[in-house]
Amino acid sequence: MWEANEDNLEAIAMGAGILGTGGGGNPYIGQLRARQAIKEHGPVTVLDPEELPEDAQVICVGGIGAPTVGVEKVRDLQSLYALRAIEEFTGKKATALISNEIGGSNSVEPLIPAAMTGLPVVDADGMGRAFPEFQMKTFFVYGVPCCPMAIADEKGNTVVISETISPAWAERLARAITVQMGCVACYAVAPMTAEQVRRTAVLNTLSLARNLGDAVITARARGEDPIEAILGTCPGKILFNGKIADVDRRTTAGFARGSLSIQGLANYDGEQLAIEFQNENLIARRDGQVVCTVPDLICVVDSETGEPVTTELLRYGLRVTVLGLPAPDLWTTPEGLAVAGPRVFGYDTDFSPIQL
Amino acid sequence: MWEANEDNLEAIAMGAGILGTGGGGNPYIGQLRARQAIKEHGPVTVLDPEELPEDAQVICVGGIGAPTVGVEKVRDLQSLYALRAIEEFTGKKATALISNEIGGSNSVEPLIPAAMTGLPVVDADGMGRAFPEFQMKTFFVYGVPCCPMAIADEKGNTVVISETISPAWAERLARAITVQMGCVACYAVAPMTAEQVRRTAVLNTLSLARNLGDAVITARARGEDPIEAILGTCPGKILFNGKIADVDRRTTAGFARGSLSIQGLANYDGEQLAIEFQNENLIARRDGQVVCTVPDLICVVDSETGEPVTTELLRYGLRVTVLGLPAPDLWTTPEGLAVAGPRVFGYDTDFSPIQL
Repeated sequence: MWEANEDNLEAIAMGAGILGTGGGGNPYIGQLRARQAIKEHGPVTVLDPEELPEDAQVICVGGIGAPTVGVEKVRDLQSLYALRAIEEFTGKKATALISNEIGGSNSVEPLIPAAMTGLPVVDADGMGRAFPEFQMKTFFVYGVPCCPMAIADEKGNTVVISETISPAWAERLARAITVQMGCVACYAVAPMTAEQVRRTAVLNTLSLARNLGDAVITARARGEDPIEAILGTCPGKILFNGKIADVDRRTTAGFARGSLSIQGLANYDGEQLAIEFQNENLIARRDGQVVCTVPDLICVVDSETGEPVTTELLRYGLRVTVLGLPAPDLWTTPEGLAVAGPRVFGYDTDFSPIQL
Repeated sequence: MWEANEDNLEAIAMGAGILGTGGGGNPYIGQLRARQAIKEHGPVTVLDPEELPEDAQVICVGGIGAPTVGVEKVRDLQSLYALRAIEEFTGKKATALISNEIGGSNSVEPLIPAAMTGLPVVDADGMGRAFPEFQMKTFFVYGVPCCPMAIADEKGNTVVISETISPAWAERLARAITVQMGCVACYAVAPMTAEQVRRTAVLNTLSLARNLGDAVITARARGEDPIEAILGTCPGKILFNGKIADVDRRTTAGFARGSLSIQGLANYDGEQLAIEFQNENLIARRDGQVVCTVPDLICVVDSETGEPVTTELLRYGLRVTVLGLPAPDLWTTPEGLAVAGPRVFGYDTDFSPIQL
């Protein structure tokens, strides 16, 4: 058990931004919103999954939409509205909240309703990274029902997807609703038990995010290399490093889709790395050769500061380092890859884990 | 109290097709579906609104989508699924059903779940005609809440719009959901009381549809003019008569939108009538002059047979008569016109009732 508070919020958001592989929402905006909630209502207890009481009702809350829109149309109290709506629909009260993904703003999204309601959050999430689509959660891969889910906007509209024939249909309907709501909304999904969380969530990811952020902040304060600090905190390796030479980005069908091209510097001089993304970075090719794909993490960070560079912030000229981090084990099973492997995103390539 | 059964179903559907002003779904397909349900489960009791018990729970069920798609992707048991979903959401059981609109297939849609569940239907509807958008119902104009509403498809997906800031937002969200569901779905809205039905519905429209259909069928059997039979059954007049010279129709954003042009014959030789529609006929212009607009009814019928010609059936060369029927009084108030007058559909013209 530990406490998410004003002191460690920056580290959590920064670490989650790195693990977010480009998506999960803008970490800085997420941090500001969570900070405001904690300032007003007090810090939030973070429970280890083992500390959850057996009769826990753990509700997953998160944001849905295009990060490109999320930086302009900042979320308000939608996750609280969605939480209330799902509690009302199911007749079950949450006893703890959990992140849908350990990405930028989504990693701290539950802290807002948690601070306001006094509920704890669980040190775990449904991805161990970020993914663009609702159904891409380890919860659902390993048997937790994806419905009912409630979606709420900032205006006062609320919809409950009560039943679908598949998790992909929940995504399809939720995305269409989100687009109407202005491309930015929050959702809450019916409660999980403690057993379900322990078995299907990626565990201790909020701690990992905090540790990663801490490492970067400490390295910067000491004038050390923040990239080395990241790789000293979690397994992974440098895939590339260079200057962003081109960004092609469009907000379409409720996603930020596009690609970026990085021109190599130093060790990579004369080489080129191309990354394709759908909210999150999906595939990286060095001079045409695939070097990393989902579900492994392709993390773009500022080479100087170690700050995560999310897809909505990509811009020409930025000096970046691209890191490859191995996917959580729950994703590299056949069931996991069937939901979030490279073929799901239309790439004609099998998943080949990065070699460390 | 009367009975909707296999004998009068054709008349009801035909009359509703005429009152449907081009929309409401294909009357023939609606009739076949209702016939099947009545054949299997028995006839349906039609209650006069005055016969409703004071503690009645009247649930409005109907179809939503583009009629152009509805003729290819025929509805199944979606209205029963939607009815069940809204009963479950509200915890209130229906004691009677009511049509959302007295248009083609929508007028008989409630007969299907009614036959299957043994519930009666009310001799009334929410429009007294058909309109393309969900919020365009006299119920909502006069204070009945439009939420919660449940939407179901034939596959097993169900969504409940639990709260919106306006009826127009319910339409917006419902339409986006319907498009994902394949442009054809059914919905059910939370129960109304008997008092609400009597005060806000257009009354005795199922009887009117049956009487109109009867008149046309009888006239045809006797070799009499079916158009005269229509105008002998309800107030209205002939606006035009001729041959369809052009149809421009596209299925977009969940609607069948377009226009048709009719070349005059007989009395109207040398003249041209143009009609614009969004599922339903919205405005008619004779040689450029507006002659009829919503909420008045612009009804296109086959000149020979008196059969309604719905927007999905419009085709070059068809001989048609265009009738103008006065709107129900509930629509010609300032509140009614604010929801379904010509300006709502983007026409820069005030409503001017047709002169009989």
